[in-house]
Amino acid sequence: MADEKKAGNETPGSVGIVSTQTITVAHPPDVLQLECGRSLGPITVAYETYGALSAKRDNTILIQHAWTGDAHVAGRHHPDDAKPGWWDIMVGPGKAFDTNRYYVICMNVIGGCKGTTGPSSINPATGKPYGLTFPMVTIADMVKVQKLVLEKMGITQLFSMAGGSMGGMQVLEWILRYPESVRSAMIIASTSRLSPQSIGFNEVGRHAIISDPNWQNGDYYQSDKRPETGLAIARMIGHITFLSEESMNQKFGRRLQNQAEYSYLFTREFEVESYLHAQGSRFVKRFDANTYLYITKAMDYFNAAADWGEGSLEKACRRILAKTLVVSFTSDWLFPSNQSRELVKALRQNNKDVSYIEIKSSYGHDAFLLETQTLTRVMDSFLDNLYESVMDHAE
Amino acid sequence: MADEKKAGNETPGSVGIVSTQTITVAHPPDVLQLECGRSLGPITVAYETYGALSAKRDNTILIQHAWTGDAHVAGRHHPDDAKPGWWDIMVGPGKAFDTNRYYVICMNVIGGCKGTTGPSSINPATGKPYGLTFPMVTIADMVKVQKLVLEKMGITQLFSMAGGSMGGMQVLEWILRYPESVRSAMIIASTSRLSPQSIGFNEVGRHAIISDPNWQNGDYYQSDKRPETGLAIARMIGHITFLSEESMNQKFGRRLQNQAEYSYLFTREFEVESYLHAQGSRFVKRFDANTYLYITKAMDYFNAAADWGEGSLEKACRRILAKTLVVSFTSDWLFPSNQSRELVKALRQNNKDVSYIEIKSSYGHDAFLLETQTLTRVMDSFLDNLYESVMDHAE
Repeated sequence: MADEKKAGNETPGSVGIVSTQTITVAHPPDVLQLECGRSLGPITVAYETYGALSAKRDNTILIQHAWTGDAHVAGRHHPDDAKPGWWDIMVGPGKAFDTNRYYVICMNVIGGCKGTTGPSSINPATGKPYGLTFPMVTIADMVKVQKLVLEKMGITQLFSMAGGSMGGMQVLEWILRYPESVRSAMIIASTSRLSPQSIGFNEVGRHAIISDPNWQNGDYYQSDKRPETGLAIARMIGHITFLSEESMNQKFGRRLQNQAEYSYLFTREFEVESYLHAQGSRFVKRFDANTYLYITKAMDYFNAAADWGEGSLEKACRRILAKTLVVSFTSDWLFPSNQSRELVKALRQNNKDVSYIEIKSSYGHDAFLLETQTLTRVMDSFLDNLYESVMDHAE
Repeated sequence: MADEKKAGNETPGSVGIVSTQTITVAHPPDVLQLECGRSLGPITVAYETYGALSAKRDNTILIQHAWTGDAHVAGRHHPDDAKPGWWDIMVGPGKAFDTNRYYVICMNVIGGCKGTTGPSSINPATGKPYGLTFPMVTIADMVKVQKLVLEKMGITQLFSMAGGSMGGMQVLEWILRYPESVRSAMIIASTSRLSPQSIGFNEVGRHAIISDPNWQNGDYYQSDKRPETGLAIARMIGHITFLSEESMNQKFGRRLQNQAEYSYLFTREFEVESYLHAQGSRFVKRFDANTYLYITKAMDYFNAAADWGEGSLEKACRRILAKTLVVSFTSDWLFPSNQSRELVKALRQNNKDVSYIEIKSSYGHDAFLLETQTLTRVMDSFLDNLYESVMDHAE
C-alpha cells in the first residue's frame, strides 16, 4: 500500500490545476469485441488522475461518472474556472478519496462525448464522425475499455471503485466481470437493472431527439443545425426524475418567476418551468444528442442478473469478491432504495462482505451529488477501515 | 327526490344507446367573463345525460371528466361501438350512479375538443378556428360554464357530483364557488393544486407540442400537417405518470416485444416502449394539441387555497357546505395521497362532513379508472347513505 498516512487534522484541499489526458487502446487488429457483436478500435479514452500511483501499484481508486458526466472529477482545468470537477468535494488531499494516499482515476465512458471515442468522434475509416454508424455499446463495454486502459497503465489491481447512478452500474459490472481485480466497491444511488419506468422515460427522451428534424438521422455534425430542441426536452424530463416531489416543493413550490399574478399566456411563468428550460438550454451546449441516445440504451440494456446469473441476482453475486458498500437515498424514485436492497440481499445470501446505508434525504436521485457531508463520512469510513486493515495485514 | 327505489337484486345494466347533445350559453351580449380578464361567447357545450330528471329536479349527479376525457360517460353511441363510455362501469341502471334513481349529466369542458367550444372551434367573429386566439381558461371557467348550462336546463340544485383527477378539481371548485348548489361531492385521485413536479411534466409536454414544426403557432387546423409528434411525446410522458413503478413492473417488467434477444438497434424493443408509442399514436388520432396546451395550463393554475382562502386551504374550506367523499390511491404518485389528506384535514378543521378513503392499489393514478370494484362499493355506499337520509327526511 501507499506509505503516506492520512493527516488527521489537515484541512481538505484541492487537487489544484489538472488536465484531461487521453490514451488509446484497442488498436487494430486488436480491436475490442463489443457485446452487440460488432468490434471497435482504435478507442481513445479521456481520463484524469489525481494523486500518485504507489510503488506497489496498489492504491488506485477508479471513479465512475454518471450518465452525462465526464472524466473531470476534481480540481480546475484553468485557474479561472467557475466550478471545479463534478465530485471535487470527494477527491483531494484530506478528502474521502485522499489524494495523499490514493491514486484516483476517472475515465469518460465509451460512447461519450467528453474525449472518449463515441458517435461524435471521427471514424478513422471514413474521416467523418461516426454518427449512427457507431456501434451500440453497453455498460459491459464501458468496463472492458477501462480494463484495457488500466492494463496499459500497468495497473492490474484496484484498491477501490466508486460510482453513483450509471457510475454504480459500471462498478457492479466491474466486480462481476473482473472479481479478482477490485478490492472494494461503492455503489451509490444505483441499480442492477433499470425499471420499466426508467426505460420509459429514456425512450421518451430518445424519441424527442430522434423526432427533432435537426437530428438528421444522427448526421448533424457538419450541419449548422443540431437537435437542440429534442435534446433539451430529453434533459427536462431527466431533471424532473432527478429531483423529488419534496425537493421540488422546497426549491420551487408554486412560485412564479418575476411576476406576482398569472399571465394567462403560454409563457414560462412558474419557477419550475424556468428552471427546467434553463437546465435544458445549458445541457445542449455541453452534450451531444447521439451520445444521449447511446448512453441511455446502454443503461436500458444493463441487467446484472440476466448477464451473470441466468436471471438470478443472487446467483450473479456469487462471483463477487470485492467488499462492497451500497448507498441509497430515501427520496430517490429513479433508482429507489428497494433496488439497492435487492442487490444487498443478493450479496448477503452469498455471505458477501456488504454494508448498506440508506441515507435520509429529500433531494431525490440528485442526492448522490448533494448529500456530500453524509456521503463523505460514509465513504471515508468505508475506505479508512479497509485501508487500515490492509495496512495492518501488510505490517 | 326521485321516487324510484333502487332494485336490490337487479343485474346492473347499460344505459344503452346514447348520443352527445349540445347546448349553447353565453350568447352575446351576455358573454362569459373569464378569469383571465377576457370574455367569451357564445359557448357551445357538448353533454350527455342518463336517467330522467325527477319532478322536483333534485336528483341530478354531475360527472366531471378528467384531462383528456369527454361527455360520453356511459352506454354506446352506436350498437357496434367497441367500447362504451369512459365510466360505463359506474353509470347505469343498478350501478353506483343508478340511472333508475339519478339523472346523470356529463359535459365536455370549455377549451376541450370533444364538442365544447375550444381552440379547435370556429370563432364566429372570423369564421376560422380560434387556435391560439382562444382565451386562456381555468378550472373556474369550466365550472362557470357548467353552471350556465344547468341553469338553462332548469337545474339549480345538484344531488351529487363526482370527478377523478382534473374532474376532482372541478368538483372542488364547484363546492367552493357554488356551495349552496351541491348537496354532496366526490373528489377522487385529485388535488387542491398541482405540485411543481406535475407542473414540470405538463410544461415539458407543452414544450414538445410547441416545438413541433407542424404546430405552426397553433394555426394548423387548415393544414395537412398537425403536431402529432409533439402531442404523442406529451402523451407518452403523461402515461408514465399515470402508472406506478409497481404496475409497470407487473404490466411490462423488462420484457422484450416480439424478440428474445436485444437487437442493439434504436428500435422499440422493450414492451414498455411499444406500449408508450402505441398510446401516443392512439392519442393523436382523438385529441387536439391546442386543447392539450389549454387544459394543462388550466390545471397548472388551479389553486383552491389561493383562490378561496387567501393561501389557506383551511380558510377556503369554510365555504363548503356539501358532504364530501375524498378518495386517493396508495400508488398514485401524480396526485399522491398526502395531497388528498391535506384537503381532508382542511375540511375537518372546519368540522365539515367529510369521509376519506385511501384505496390500496398498485395501478398508480390510473387506479381511479381501474379499481372499479372498490370504487363502486365506496361511491355506491356514499350515495346510498345520502339518498336514504334525504328520503327519510322527506318522508
